Amino acid sequence: MKAVVLLSGGLDSTTCLAIAKHQGFECHVLSFDYQQRHKAELHAAKKIAKHMGAASHQIVNLAIHQWGGSALTDTHLTIPEDKVSDEIPITYVPARNTLFLAYALSFAEAIGAYDIFIGVSQIDFSNYPDCRPAFIEAFETLANLATKAGVERQAFKMHTPLMHLSKAETIKAGVNLGVDYQLTVSCYQADDQGLACGKCHSCQLRQKGFQEAGLVDATNYQKL
Amino acid sequence: MKAVVLLSGGLDSTTCLAIAKHQGFECHVLSFDYQQRHKAELHAAKKIAKHMGAASHQIVNLAIHQWGGSALTDTHLTIPEDKVSDEIPITYVPARNTLFLAYALSFAEAIGAYDIFIGVSQIDFSNYPDCRPAFIEAFETLANLATKAGVERQAFKMHTPLMHLSKAETIKAGVNLGVDYQLTVSCYQADDQGLACGKCHSCQLRQKGFQEAGLVDATNYQKL
Repeated sequence: MKAVVLLSGGLDSTTCLAIAKHQGFECHVLSFDYQQRHKAELHAAKKIAKHMGAASHQIVNLAIHQWGGSALTDTHLTIPEDKVSDEIPITYVPARNTLFLAYALSFAEAIGAYDIFIGVSQIDFSNYPDCRPAFIEAFETLANLATKAGVERQAFKMHTPLMHLSKAETIKAGVNLGVDYQLTVSCYQADDQGLACGKCHSCQLRQKGFQEAGLVDATNYQKL
Repeated sequence: MKAVVLLSGGLDSTTCLAIAKHQGFECHVLSFDYQQRHKAELHAAKKIAKHMGAASHQIVNLAIHQWGGSALTDTHLTIPEDKVSDEIPITYVPARNTLFLAYALSFAEAIGAYDIFIGVSQIDFSNYPDCRPAFIEAFETLANLATKAGVERQAFKMHTPLMHLSKAETIKAGVNLGVDYQLTVSCYQADDQGLACGKCHSCQLRQKGFQEAGLVDATNYQKL
């Protein structure tokens, strides 16, 4: 059975792809070029999709940098390196996951897939609103109202296998499935070689995850 | 107050823009280049946005042609010229309005707008699933779960002023607000000059609208 799997090239989405594959889906992978600073993430996604035997890999150009609004797409803004807090940070990209899922839905309907995987987690998620169960449930409802396949047979199902896992639990699940985390890039300001800063919120969450999992940190850091 | 208004360059979205303007909104207009055959629609949108005094006009490249699935983006498929039936036609573009609204939401949040106008109608709508009230309501719910502005103050409101209007009623409303329908292009296979075929479903619905409104058909047709 076909599934569409969103793959950023980071730790979570790569684990999500491994899980979808393990569940027996033929994985059609979708990545986005939204002029994110961390382009290395996208290079990683290409390698990972190939390495993990994706049935196809589409890269979509997303024109959201044209209106800015996020430190991930606006180089005039600084990526925070302070402690992760309870607030929605400046790295939030307006409606990013809504756009990602809208594309996934369009792609899925075009290829006859009804299962969509996204590696969001409500734990360790940087407080992004579009990583919560209520958002995903609302999108599934929307998907089945918005589309021909949805209206005809309520066919679409959103899969969020990491929703209730901590970063450490995600890493352990991935390791069990043979994921090579050296291939993944989580850093918001990774350099062209994919080397991580070790300071941004995404790096902090990843480090914490490896520590709590009791595993060696599979991250390639920039040399100071 | 700022609003984001989706403008295809057709009759409905142009009327919707006129209504948003009449309601006192500062209209930020969004159009999409999805490699639709009827590129003339997009040229019309540019003229209309300027003519109607839009505060800004963004044109977004939408990469959905890369997976096809619709006669509007796949030139190997034929635009139907038979009678409009109750079925979802081949001109349906997978998840198009979901994508349009996802972009509108992202743009709105980035510019601090909370009102989004879309000119869908459940009457005379070609049976597209993503033109029905249930779809729009589901999107409004999603918008307020998906975004920082939504979570912080349930701010987003979807406006569908044409939802319960027939094509004739829409045309009458637009004429009352001074809309120049000669500027609009509805035809699915309009030529480079924006001249309409007079045969496709969209042309049929438009013609019927002018007839029922008792008005002269403000459409520029191709010469046979």
